[in-house]
Amino acid sequence: MSDHAEASATPVPAFEPPYYVAVFTTIRTPDQTGFGETNRRMEELVRDIPGYLGMEHAQDPGGLGITVAYFRDSDGLRQWQSHPEHRAAQRRGRAQWYESYTLHVAKVERSHGFMRAD
Amino acid sequence: MSDHAEASATPVPAFEPPYYVAVFTTIRTPDQTGFGETNRRMEELVRDIPGYLGMEHAQDPGGLGITVAYFRDSDGLRQWQSHPEHRAAQRRGRAQWYESYTLHVAKVERSHGFMRAD
Repeated sequence: MSDHAEASATPVPAFEPPYYVAVFTTIRTPDQTGFGETNRRMEELVRDIPGYLGMEHAQDPGGLGITVAYFRDSDGLRQWQSHPEHRAAQRRGRAQWYESYTLHVAKVERSHGFMRAD
Repeated sequence: MSDHAEASATPVPAFEPPYYVAVFTTIRTPDQTGFGETNRRMEELVRDIPGYLGMEHAQDPGGLGITVAYFRDSDGLRQWQSHPEHRAAQRRGRAQWYESYTLHVAKVERSHGFMRAD
């Protein structure tokens, strides 16, 4: 599944805390009609949200999907969650694309990264 | 890649905040020798940490992997991060399995879940 290829190409780096993460885990239905198109539109829209820092996605083939979105503050995250087009996509997700999902919104207290030297 | 099949079978539910998440995103090296075995051992060990709530993993084939671990409080999470066998696994990960990774530790402020009714 490569719907999120752009979002997942590079891990989002560790920023200076505090910042916010939204962890969105999903089990999909068999009917993914229209998902790719909507998803690309969402990835485009979210870039205009003030304080948006990045997004990552990983998808087990036929299994669990995890999307993590990063924002500088909770206002930006709320603005994204309530964006009219995003709200419409959320409704369609519940009606068609998702068997189940969980959303965890959290404030990052510490973070670090590692990159191979060689 | 099915190393994490057990951890990723079911999404971790939304708990009553506050609780903690550790978001661990990785790009792997080509040499994954021994990874599966160590990973299974870690999944076994973490269950003994007080306040451990669950873990999820999704892996894009050949791409990004995201693991999210959930703990009731930051003490449990710190205890897990500093567990001697886990520390040894972290060292081996940096030496062999990971091209790069990022860890974000965050306190969950709100959460919710959805499950299809039909």
